[in-house]
Amino acid sequence: MDLLYFEDFPPGEIVQYGDMEVSAARIVAFAEQFDPQPFHLDDAAGRETMAGGLIASGWHTAGMLMRMSCDYFLNRSAGEGSPGIAEVNWLKPVRPGDRLSVRRTTVSARPSASKPKLGIVDFSFEVLNQLGEVTMTQKNVILFKRRPVGEEAAA
Amino acid sequence: MDLLYFEDFPPGEIVQYGDMEVSAARIVAFAEQFDPQPFHLDDAAGRETMAGGLIASGWHTAGMLMRMSCDYFLNRSAGEGSPGIAEVNWLKPVRPGDRLSVRRTTVSARPSASKPKLGIVDFSFEVLNQLGEVTMTQKNVILFKRRPVGEEAAA
Repeated sequence: MDLLYFEDFPPGEIVQYGDMEVSAARIVAFAEQFDPQPFHLDDAAGRETMAGGLIASGWHTAGMLMRMSCDYFLNRSAGEGSPGIAEVNWLKPVRPGDRLSVRRTTVSARPSASKPKLGIVDFSFEVLNQLGEVTMTQKNVILFKRRPVGEEAAA
Repeated sequence: MDLLYFEDFPPGEIVQYGDMEVSAARIVAFAEQFDPQPFHLDDAAGRETMAGGLIASGWHTAGMLMRMSCDYFLNRSAGEGSPGIAEVNWLKPVRPGDRLSVRRTTVSARPSASKPKLGIVDFSFEVLNQLGEVTMTQKNVILFKRRPVGEEAAA
């Protein structure tokens, strides 16, 4: 398998990926375990709140972003993890029947000063719904190994 | 039910809550759905990585923090949601058998300038393991309704 290395994430690159349908059953299952607030558990209860019906937990949306990123690039990369998240913004509710995708922008990339075999890539992620609306944004760095000398770039 | 309002979160207050045991089965179930990287799916695979064994997805830990916060205070509050997260840091791995709890610090609290019925509370959360080590930190604001005039404070 051709791995993606630090050098495969040029600053300024914008890619779009993922297609995840959001069901009421999955919204409720997530909420029962991690975020049992009325508007994440029940449509009728949600209608009595500012949510206006059943909406996904923001943490569920963050999990779906992670899943789409694993499937698209992380699980075929020489990734070395992320120390944390710089910022998450929940801009629009995610509702049953929505189809989510991701727009990823590579903001910057630099070799690690302390670990010469690693590079640090700064990403901005936008989670879009089927109307192209941005439902969530997230900024965070991910560490990747640098491509070993003499190895070819992935196709 | 006595609701917690904006006025019930005085700046400087530190409270500790929650007791959530982390099992291998739950770590794997979360990862299969949201973060299918080898060190979140399988102990043997994790031993071949810097993780040194099976570790929980950082998003799983964030979900567990949310659940402990719902149980302790959010689900009995006049909360109006959170616009997003200012910062998440994953400091130590969470492993099967760990017991997690939360230390919540109220950093600041101010009335909303634009919505006089709401107040904005800035929290710092630390997720602790059974050794008292900080595994994750998170900073975010939560909006709460202000206590209606004439209503008593919650006990």
